[in-house]
Amino acid sequence: MKLLSETKTLTAAACNAQMELPLQSLVREIIDAATDHANALGFGYDRLLANGNAWVLSRLCVEMQRFPAVGDTYTLTTWIEATNRHFSTRNFEITDSNGTTLGHSRTVWAGIDIKTRRSVDLTGLQSLVDMSLDRQCPVAPPARLRFASRNPTVTPYTVQVSDIDSNRHLTTARYVELAVNCLSLDDYDRCFPGRFDISFMKECRFGEALDISHSLDGSTLDVAIANSAGETCCDARIILTER
Amino acid sequence: MKLLSETKTLTAAACNAQMELPLQSLVREIIDAATDHANALGFGYDRLLANGNAWVLSRLCVEMQRFPAVGDTYTLTTWIEATNRHFSTRNFEITDSNGTTLGHSRTVWAGIDIKTRRSVDLTGLQSLVDMSLDRQCPVAPPARLRFASRNPTVTPYTVQVSDIDSNRHLTTARYVELAVNCLSLDDYDRCFPGRFDISFMKECRFGEALDISHSLDGSTLDVAIANSAGETCCDARIILTER
Repeated sequence: MKLLSETKTLTAAACNAQMELPLQSLVREIIDAATDHANALGFGYDRLLANGNAWVLSRLCVEMQRFPAVGDTYTLTTWIEATNRHFSTRNFEITDSNGTTLGHSRTVWAGIDIKTRRSVDLTGLQSLVDMSLDRQCPVAPPARLRFASRNPTVTPYTVQVSDIDSNRHLTTARYVELAVNCLSLDDYDRCFPGRFDISFMKECRFGEALDISHSLDGSTLDVAIANSAGETCCDARIILTER
Repeated sequence: MKLLSETKTLTAAACNAQMELPLQSLVREIIDAATDHANALGFGYDRLLANGNAWVLSRLCVEMQRFPAVGDTYTLTTWIEATNRHFSTRNFEITDSNGTTLGHSRTVWAGIDIKTRRSVDLTGLQSLVDMSLDRQCPVAPPARLRFASRNPTVTPYTVQVSDIDSNRHLTTARYVELAVNCLSLDDYDRCFPGRFDISFMKECRFGEALDISHSLDGSTLDVAIANSAGETCCDARIILTER
């Protein structure tokens, strides 16, 4: 029960232009697996909601040696690394059908009070604390990003209906798409996103006017998404790996 | 074998702001079910490709009395209505867990030669012709749309990396999203898309500058997506039903 594995096969309809699993789909599947595991262990969204709390994804990283390609069967395995007062860290390994590692992911979750939106102490959930597993996840934790470029490219973006999730916020996979879309199809034909980091600071709502700033320095793309008040909502980084 | 059914349960993560299955997700599931059924019957994408041909979705309509809501289990059932020289029509019924009808869909597919992009005669595939089923689908065929407004609202849109599918075209579900996004969250809180029609004329590619024209007349939203040469790539219509 400390490990949950989910196996999928990549259909052509689910592929990107490079005939691979898109980064945004992988992130969606990572969040789905986290949700399924938390539900199975009795501390899912519904259980937290009974106490007026909710899970919020704070940071995530993905590091891939290779993405699943069309027709590939692949498995996501997830476990909880540790839980402290503020955060619960949950890791993932992605393997191919031979059990060879394709990559890893680390995610950092907070519990918040849905009324005050303030962080709650997760160590009160003993069943969560007890589920920590000492298993290797050989990638660096999600980076604390700071957008440094003085001459970024800034693209305005207004949050659309199809971007909004059941919490009425811009949905996580769409943030990933907005970052992915700062590069061109040629870039992804030449490289794949070998490492991806994202951190969430502030929720975006329907109709909000956002500024998406990005700068590419060598193989590192930095992205910052800010609202009209100038507050950073989300920082992301994609490090490209040559194919 | 003349019928294929696929059953799903709607998770919160897959819901829109109204806690329902989004129209674009329903269309994606319709296309997936069509693909699965064609593959199972031996005239899927791979079989056509062996002859240098491919399936292309030409028109689609969806008419729903109600959309699946969060937690609902629902079933898509699909069958082929008829196949002629130019088109194969495939229908769908969407039912809830009690077998009550939630809605229907009709889809019209063409076979094309992938080199010439010209239509091929589908009646040569006897296994396809033999699969027609005389089963009721009590909704009107996909409308032949003609965008009539003289004063549309025109929104420019550039095709992004995350919009592109494995054929390197703007993916069908994303066309649906672009149409859905012509209305506001308030509109969808008040109404749901009771009827949706879409027809595809020309493929869009990465980086293309599109104009999305829309006009709302009563409960009818008309949308036309055109490329920079002024060619219409896609027409769509959403008829809203009050909740």
